[in-house]
Amino acid sequence: MSTSGYYGGVEGGATHSKMVLMNANGDILAWIDGPSTNQWLIGQEECLKRVNNMVEDAKSKAGLDSSTKLLSLGLSMSGADQKDAQNQLISGIKSKYPQCSQNVFIASDTAGAIATATEKGGIVLIAGTGSNCMLINPDGRAFRCGGWGHLLGDEGSAYWITQTAIKIVFDHEDNLKVSPHDISFVKDVMMKYFQISDRDELLHYFYSKFEKSYIAGLCKELAQGARENKDKLCLELFRQAGEILAEHILGVGPHVAEELLNTPSGLQVVTVGSVWKSWDFMKEGFVNVLKDRAKNPRISKICLLELKESAAIGAASLGAKSIKQTLPIDYLHNASMYFQSEF
Amino acid sequence: MSTSGYYGGVEGGATHSKMVLMNANGDILAWIDGPSTNQWLIGQEECLKRVNNMVEDAKSKAGLDSSTKLLSLGLSMSGADQKDAQNQLISGIKSKYPQCSQNVFIASDTAGAIATATEKGGIVLIAGTGSNCMLINPDGRAFRCGGWGHLLGDEGSAYWITQTAIKIVFDHEDNLKVSPHDISFVKDVMMKYFQISDRDELLHYFYSKFEKSYIAGLCKELAQGARENKDKLCLELFRQAGEILAEHILGVGPHVAEELLNTPSGLQVVTVGSVWKSWDFMKEGFVNVLKDRAKNPRISKICLLELKESAAIGAASLGAKSIKQTLPIDYLHNASMYFQSEF
Repeated sequence: MSTSGYYGGVEGGATHSKMVLMNANGDILAWIDGPSTNQWLIGQEECLKRVNNMVEDAKSKAGLDSSTKLLSLGLSMSGADQKDAQNQLISGIKSKYPQCSQNVFIASDTAGAIATATEKGGIVLIAGTGSNCMLINPDGRAFRCGGWGHLLGDEGSAYWITQTAIKIVFDHEDNLKVSPHDISFVKDVMMKYFQISDRDELLHYFYSKFEKSYIAGLCKELAQGARENKDKLCLELFRQAGEILAEHILGVGPHVAEELLNTPSGLQVVTVGSVWKSWDFMKEGFVNVLKDRAKNPRISKICLLELKESAAIGAASLGAKSIKQTLPIDYLHNASMYFQSEF
Repeated sequence: MSTSGYYGGVEGGATHSKMVLMNANGDILAWIDGPSTNQWLIGQEECLKRVNNMVEDAKSKAGLDSSTKLLSLGLSMSGADQKDAQNQLISGIKSKYPQCSQNVFIASDTAGAIATATEKGGIVLIAGTGSNCMLINPDGRAFRCGGWGHLLGDEGSAYWITQTAIKIVFDHEDNLKVSPHDISFVKDVMMKYFQISDRDELLHYFYSKFEKSYIAGLCKELAQGARENKDKLCLELFRQAGEILAEHILGVGPHVAEELLNTPSGLQVVTVGSVWKSWDFMKEGFVNVLKDRAKNPRISKICLLELKESAAIGAASLGAKSIKQTLPIDYLHNASMYFQSEF
């Protein structure tokens, strides 16, 4: 273990980001909150600028001079799954912000989450603004299901739940597909959230003014509708989210290493994102999919973990590993199990 | 009938637009082709500018002075269903381009199509870049199903067929939903069309570089795949498009006036847009939905009409009607029946 120098880690999301600055002993020197750093939403240049701003803020908060180069900066970012884009981001940081860090490592948002919760790998299932599922096996090989953005993926995410809810209202009013559940609660919160008096006005938000994270924000109201009003349509939406998220696990199912299946607590699934706060309403759909032995022949026991610390820690750890350093990570402290089931 | 003065009509689409300039005898003085005038895609100001450019071009082509005000300008535009937006566009044209036309009338893209094909009303079913369905009864009352853009509607459109095709490829490769049909043909044309070597690269086109009409352009290749290669997945996509488009007719079904149902040739449905070129492959799905008496208790006979002239003519006619003028329209010349069926 190196005994000096500084290590940065960034958890970059579609709505907000978080950065940690650590020393070689794993001590946390600074936490910094930042805005979205998803390059597909804000562009590559803005993404780099925001990352560097967070690093600068972290150095300043830790009392370091701005010219102090980090030994490594690990970025675990939504929208950074692609090798080419990763390389472009790395060379962009190095050329534009040479004082930032000696080494830069980039991985998807899923990789940082797993590296925060477990050493040997597992599945991470993100359901925040967007969604994504990644299996990382003990041998380091990764398999992905979903995570293709709101037009080609994102099932089970806050955006997807909101869009599905709005679509149900529109289809019902069009008599295109009659909803089996009363739509009036969902329609009410939708009109209030977007401050509109006619559903036609919603088109602004789904064309020129389109902002994924703003639309996804309605999901919080739908979760409240499930919890406080026991609204049947809201409950159904979260049940469906549970189903489709479980189907992502089955998507990577054939590739899960035996070692992960045989973990005493069951296959570890790290769940990340605000949608999981509504787990109570997702559970039924989720479990029903997994206990269907025709669909799920391999996974007989799983446990769901939630992170107690930001995936920025895993990102910092991956960054250090990329230069053959090992930061001491207290995995038990970083994640806790909240659900376990056998099928 | 007024015996002097000029009447303009614009069919405004999400990909291109068309304008006609007529005199009071219904003689066509000029046709003008123009770009997209969908305000949700290009913004209101650009929309007005493009409309005025077309009017200027038409005047010039007809040998009229730029200062010659039209008596009326009828706009039948995709993305102009909303009363507020219509009023904004009208006052925008009048204030920015005072030499354009004395009167401006705006209706949805569907209204112009019906006014081109029939005097008493009927259903128009658009499946171009986007999709939309509108019933206009003999009493002038209109009922709509769909037409909410690519995020909340557009089922059966070229964009929808393309997006559905791409999603099937992604879900199959993710093992999220295994396709019952071989995906290789669709994947090949997708990779070629977007000039990519890895599906990850497609994300550009579905985020920052998103352009609806460009994505929808792939639909032409899929239609070719159905026709020339008899590719099962392509055939299935058009069958599904036929189904969901027929469901739009059922959406407005309860509101169809008896008079329209009792038309000897059957309920007239004016079909507009390039997707209908693949009618051969849509027919099965379309007919199956309509002959389901549980779903369709009212409509026992329909005929599909295609326009032989641009809906710009109907738009000009509607514009004239708005100032109590009647342009002589040769409806039989403007549309022809290509399918008829009883259920």
